[in-house]
This record gives sequence, structure tokens and C-alpha cells, in this order.
Amino acid sequence: MRKRRDAVVAFQGETGAYSEIAARRFFGRETRLLPCESFELVFKSVQSGVVGFGVVPIENSLAGSIHQNYDLLLKHRLHIVGELNLRVVHNLIANAGVALADIQRIYSHPQALMQCQNTTARLKGTKIIPAYDTAGSVKKIKEEKLLDAAAIASDLAAEIYGMKILKRKIQDNPENFTRFLILKKTTVPPSDANKTSIVFSVRNLPGALFRSLSVFALRDIDLYKIESRPLHGKPWEYFFYIDFAGSVKDRNCRNAMTHLGETASFLKLLGSYRRDVSKK
Amino acid sequence: MRKRRDAVVAFQGETGAYSEIAARRFFGRETRLLPCESFELVFKSVQSGVVGFGVVPIENSLAGSIHQNYDLLLKHRLHIVGELNLRVVHNLIANAGVALADIQRIYSHPQALMQCQNTTARLKGTKIIPAYDTAGSVKKIKEEKLLDAAAIASDLAAEIYGMKILKRKIQDNPENFTRFLILKKTTVPPSDANKTSIVFSVRNLPGALFRSLSVFALRDIDLYKIESRPLHGKPWEYFFYIDFAGSVKDRNCRNAMTHLGETASFLKLLGSYRRDVSKK
Repeated sequence: MRKRRDAVVAFQGETGAYSEIAARRFFGRETRLLPCESFELVFKSVQSGVVGFGVVPIENSLAGSIHQNYDLLLKHRLHIVGELNLRVVHNLIANAGVALADIQRIYSHPQALMQCQNTTARLKGTKIIPAYDTAGSVKKIKEEKLLDAAAIASDLAAEIYGMKILKRKIQDNPENFTRFLILKKTTVPPSDANKTSIVFSVRNLPGALFRSLSVFALRDIDLYKIESRPLHGKPWEYFFYIDFAGSVKDRNCRNAMTHLGETASFLKLLGSYRRDVSKK
Repeated sequence: MRKRRDAVVAFQGETGAYSEIAARRFFGRETRLLPCESFELVFKSVQSGVVGFGVVPIENSLAGSIHQNYDLLLKHRLHIVGELNLRVVHNLIANAGVALADIQRIYSHPQALMQCQNTTARLKGTKIIPAYDTAGSVKKIKEEKLLDAAAIASDLAAEIYGMKILKRKIQDNPENFTRFLILKKTTVPPSDANKTSIVFSVRNLPGALFRSLSVFALRDIDLYKIESRPLHGKPWEYFFYIDFAGSVKDRNCRNAMTHLGETASFLKLLGSYRRDVSKK
């Protein structure tokens, strides 16, 4: 999959976004990319066949899940065919000739701003301004030739827009990773798949969630993650998203899903794919 | 608790916010209130004793959990002593003399804007502008005397700022409820408590979450909700927040928690309180 150079890959954000770094790492530096304004547009571009793949963030190790993308996985009929953990390294970026002492405003995505509070708090008197995205903030201070402003973004964003990095690695917590999903319009899992994602809902009965999880525990299938999202129209009922060890190609996992289907009121396979255990 | 008229109650947002409606419904119309700029400030005001109670939203039946407040429950040492379900009814609000055809901009909190997309899409050519909060948007268009703008907020906000409601009940889905928690600096649960909230983490072992949930299932204790949040410094490990039936005053629930404590690497009681089953 990583070698398929002919496929275009969609991601959300401006050129230089962390999603672009993830896409290039997964598919190779020379991959042709389609920047999209919204996550929904990434899903739609893959669904309609405009692009071959989509890359979306699903979870950050500090900020938690990107819930909108969980909802979009349910709404669209795409499959997860891969994942990638990306170490997030934030930098303070400005126009050439601008010094740290000149900075009076700092622009970035609210998540990035939150993850660099220690650094920004030390820059006394600077105004923190939430923006649409990280790379877009770099683009903005470049285009508007702002000489009293900086942006927080990736080193790729600094490189692409020809901007200066004032300070490197400014995030408060170095254990900052974002997990990205690779989406495709297919139902065939990769042959090396060892992780599976599903979404289901349960009948509103006592112990229903426990019984659902038992189909994995009774087969010694390890769970990596559980996430709940509201079920619209039924206040305080939920969809459960579960990531577990194994592929739908394994008999054990197929049995667990058949078993789960006996009690679930809804069950959808989101995909089997290769688990990324790297920390890069 | 509802009768205690001497206690001041903190909430996040401007006067007229949905949190204010929730606070008045729980404590009575005449309750003295302290509007706070952030959720963190609500927690701090209760912790420091500046106010007797805090009211914060924890979950919306369409948008899902307010994760920041889950994180703040873990960070501070407050107890949940009550909850309240509030039916969210959004209205399109403008200055007197402004007609629907004049509206070129609509301000509100991103959540409210998202929940009224059908209405706003029908107002062709209007610009949708995300703002800090719902009631604050009403205040803004009043103070700036904007005659081409409207805000989406509660009818209380319209009343407080003396503004006109152009269109009532504009939310796309009528089953729109927000659940609020009542916070206090106490460890004594109300005598009529029948719901308990805890947060815990598990040792990183296969089946650990399943075993944790078994302490409730084996005692026929019903689970209402499970929510997971990242454990900082340990990528892809989680805190689990669970709401279950019963009070820590019940032997059955105390036993379940003792049992959970045997396997959990961390366990904290967030409070036992009266479950709100109303839909008002």
C-alpha cells in the first residue's frame, strides 16, 4: 500500500499540516496530496472516488479523541486500512527578521496553543489567538507580513512557507502523539492486519455493555480502546467504538463479532489493519 | 439542598447562559449566581470556598461529552452532589426593529451553530460566525447595536438583554438535552442518592477493563455511562469514568468499589447523587 504512488491522498488542513506529515510518512514523500477544508470533505473525497485514500487524526495522546472523526466513520462507508502514530513537535514560527522580543501575538489551533502553555506563558504580554489550523496560522502571518506575530506549527510548515523557526520543540509534554487513520473505499483488509475497529450499540438492558465486552474476553482478545458517542434521538444511549487485537481474517475474531451480533442492536466493521506500535 | 438560598452558585458563561438556566432550575429562581469566564474558574471558585456550589455541563445528548469538565473533575477535589437534565431550546435573537431578511451574520457558540444547521442553511447568504458563548453573542450584538446580525441563544438571554426573538425552537433535533453536574466541596452524599460516578485507571494487562466492569455486573449493578480520557505521559492508556446505579451508602456499591480497588491502579470517587430522569 505504501508503494502505490499513483493514488492521491486527501487530508484536512493547509499544506504543512500535521496530517500532511502523517500522509507523507505513510505513503512516501512524493505522494500527491489533496488538502481539504474539513474532515467531512476528506471522507467525501474518498467516498466519491476523487482520491484513493484519506488520512485523518483520530486521537491525540494528550487531548484525547477527535470525536468528529468517530462520527464521520459511522456516517460514511469507508474502511480503515492502516494507522500511523506521529510524534507532534510544535515550533514557534515567524517572518524573517522577527525576534522573540518582537512577538506580541501568537496564532495557532486551540489544541496546539493548549499544548504549549508553558512556553507562551513565559512570553509575557503576548496575546494568544486561536486560529483555524496550525499551518494556516503560518500562512496567515506570512501573507499579512505580520512583524509582531508568531505561529505555532510543524517544522514542515516553516519550511513550506519559507519562515523562520524562533524556538523548536516548545510543547509542554514530550509524550505528544497523534494517531492517524488511513481510509479507503474497500472491504479487503491488508494481509498483515492485526488490529480491528468496530462500532456497535446495545439494547438498553442492564449489563449489556459488560456482555458485549465478554465476547472478546472469553476468547482472550485484547481490547486497545473503547470510545462512546451519543446515539442521536435517544438521549443517554450510546454508540461504542472498540479497537481490538486481531483481524477479521482470524476465525477467533470473526466468532467474537458473530457473538457480538447476537446481542448488539447495531454492529458495523470499520476495518482490520496493521497496528502501529512505533513512537516516532 | 435546593432550598439553601444563602449559597452562591458559580457557572460558566455570560448571564443568560444555559448553565444559568440549569442553576436556577436546580437551586430556585432567586439563587445568587456568579458568572465565570471558564470552567476551570467554576471549579476553583468552589474549591476555594468563594461560592458554595458550581454547575457545569458534562454531556449533551447530540454533541456528546464535555471532555474538559471530565478532566477538571479529576484535577480538582470536588464532589458531584446532584445532576440536572435541561432541554436545550435555541432561538434566533436580534435587536428590536431587525427583520429576518436583514440578517447577514449569525453569531453563537460552535455547538449551538451545529445544532441549528437546517435553519441557518435556509437563510441564504448569511455568514455563520463562531463565538465564545451563546448568551455572550446576544450581549455582543446588543452592545455593538448590530442591525444585520442575529445570535442563537436561550429565551432567557433574549429576555435579560431585552432583545427580540425572531424565530423560536430552531434546533434541528428536538431531543436535545444537556446534563449538568452540581459540584460541592463535601464528601457527604445526599440521602436520596441513587447514582454514583467514579474515575479509575487499570494496569496495562489483557482483559483489564473487562475485569473492572465485572465488579459491577457480578453484583447486578447497572452502568449508565463509560467515558475514556487519555492518561498523560502514557500514550494510548486511559482513565475510565463510569456512572453506575446506587450510592456509596449501599453495601453492594461499596463492595463493588473495594473489589475494583483490588485491580485498579488508580480509583477516585467523584460522588453519589440523585439521578435526574426528567425530560424538561
